[in-house]
Amino acid sequence: MDAPAVYRIALDVMGGDHAPTATLEGARLALAAHPDLFLHLVGDEARLRPLMGPMGFKGELLTRCALVHAATVVDMDDKATSILKEKKNSSIRVAAQLVREGKADGVVSMGHTGAAMVASKMVVGTLDGVDRPCLATILPNMHGRPTVLLDVGANIDCRPEHIAQFAVMGSIYAEHVLGIERPRVGVLSVGEEEGKGSATTKEAAQFLKELDVNFTGNAEGRDLWNDKFDVIACDGFVGNALLKSAESLAEGLIEGLKSVFMESFFTKIAALMAKPALKRFAKKLDYEEYGGAPLLGVKGISIIGHGRSNARAVQSAIRAALVACEHRVNDHIQESLGRVMSQAESQDPS
Amino acid sequence: MDAPAVYRIALDVMGGDHAPTATLEGARLALAAHPDLFLHLVGDEARLRPLMGPMGFKGELLTRCALVHAATVVDMDDKATSILKEKKNSSIRVAAQLVREGKADGVVSMGHTGAAMVASKMVVGTLDGVDRPCLATILPNMHGRPTVLLDVGANIDCRPEHIAQFAVMGSIYAEHVLGIERPRVGVLSVGEEEGKGSATTKEAAQFLKELDVNFTGNAEGRDLWNDKFDVIACDGFVGNALLKSAESLAEGLIEGLKSVFMESFFTKIAALMAKPALKRFAKKLDYEEYGGAPLLGVKGISIIGHGRSNARAVQSAIRAALVACEHRVNDHIQESLGRVMSQAESQDPS
Repeated sequence: MDAPAVYRIALDVMGGDHAPTATLEGARLALAAHPDLFLHLVGDEARLRPLMGPMGFKGELLTRCALVHAATVVDMDDKATSILKEKKNSSIRVAAQLVREGKADGVVSMGHTGAAMVASKMVVGTLDGVDRPCLATILPNMHGRPTVLLDVGANIDCRPEHIAQFAVMGSIYAEHVLGIERPRVGVLSVGEEEGKGSATTKEAAQFLKELDVNFTGNAEGRDLWNDKFDVIACDGFVGNALLKSAESLAEGLIEGLKSVFMESFFTKIAALMAKPALKRFAKKLDYEEYGGAPLLGVKGISIIGHGRSNARAVQSAIRAALVACEHRVNDHIQESLGRVMSQAESQDPS
Repeated sequence: MDAPAVYRIALDVMGGDHAPTATLEGARLALAAHPDLFLHLVGDEARLRPLMGPMGFKGELLTRCALVHAATVVDMDDKATSILKEKKNSSIRVAAQLVREGKADGVVSMGHTGAAMVASKMVVGTLDGVDRPCLATILPNMHGRPTVLLDVGANIDCRPEHIAQFAVMGSIYAEHVLGIERPRVGVLSVGEEEGKGSATTKEAAQFLKELDVNFTGNAEGRDLWNDKFDVIACDGFVGNALLKSAESLAEGLIEGLKSVFMESFFTKIAALMAKPALKRFAKKLDYEEYGGAPLLGVKGISIIGHGRSNARAVQSAIRAALVACEHRVNDHIQESLGRVMSQAESQDPS
């Protein structure tokens, strides 16, 4: 007897630098690993169907996926809002539509980040009580544990209450998806002392003190890496700059080291000798493990992966969506923000 | 015949985690390396004088330095503004006073960053036409070349014209101190396309297009490391977060790798074999080489070093002050901002 397919994820098969090969392969790996997964594979049917057999979509797997046709794809130089106009039939828009119509519980895309955000916000829609959905990224810190940084680019200009909401949503994600008990929540600032920061961050900290999260105070840039916080909230401008800088710096250092070890016969031997230890170290810091950035605060799960994702990263992104469904992240956000709102109302003298 | 002492720098000998040993040793190294340097060594005379002989302050060196007494030092938990009240006789305040009185051309401190900034701004004073002095940091990028990031913490909330001024001052520093011809100047944003960014960064970009700098467009977080820009301007909140995150990430990766190579007999041998190559790589990324962050826009040179500076970093910070004096950085800033102001006036219809 087949295991019943419980969670239905719509995958934008056409999005990403290595689509559709990496996305299809990631889909297959995810289906094989998770018997409770059903996948809507959204993309150009004529192009995808012939690939599936040779790529191993066979037998029981086929009963847990369905091809859904979408005629176009959002290109990197398209505007994010193109999905609302000339690219209504794009794979990300069609995938989002499945969630809107209740045919899927979540959407996963490695394509145009802006388009995926617009599709999630405008087509899927925002949870009640959420002012602004926000993009979270999960950074592996130096102790091999995850730190949630949010927002990393969905909202450029933020008010204090937005940052406080990001923190609440990040805390729920850390608790229910990453399994961190009472996540330590911080607001990004320029110093750990309470008085440090901008007018916005100081007010966000005040909000958080009143709320039902484990608010631990101001975080600094360094705290992304030292395991002092589980969740760090900031506006999307700062978060985006931090994420892009960190990705580039870490890659640059690792590339630089690789080329060091290719310099000579001796260094090549050295690399060979240290390889298993280096691999263990790299695994600790492996971003592919966390698979994509959840866009929190939309009705339905939305995971936005890196354009460069390989099959394993696609699989992780699908798993992240599945876990978010299983742990009812949205119900918890809804419940928590409902509580926040009633707290705010009971404090409001009017 | 002694070389004439041309540039006079006031060193806050008491500031920094390893003061006064590291600062005195750095001073001695700088005096030995630069015959055109005169140093005011500012600190507790009774404590410093006995150290100097044993530390090698002898002969000709002694003719190019002078002890200047300061009774106290700003502690890490003092407020930055303490130098204006209860800590008027602190070493950083006394050092700044020497610049104010024309007895020194610049001040160098590894102590309390906030106090050094307040001393520079309030005691030394701001250059005409500069709205806000800003703190610049010089990051070694992955190609071993420097990128100037500013502001990294002097100004939390900034208007577009401030960011544009930071960019102009950074460009002058890059050209005259770092020797970069026509530095490529960017405004930090969330995407390289012109329309991307906050209202503030978009307006700052508009200002810069009109000005006499080589404005190259929007920079992203990743551009701190890829040698696409020589100067990247942003507000002090973002810059501070970026700097602290990068320092911590790079250190964490390097520490992590070190411990990998200590894991076993094999990895220890491997480390030994790769050591010379690793050293060359580390040298490329060596922040001590650039020695401290210049506070740009004050009357007189001000260099703020890292609290953890060792003697070599102190020496580099003193050298940075010397080079800034030699290349008349402030004259260039004054001239350039004078031009900016007359441009602005000629465009102003009123």
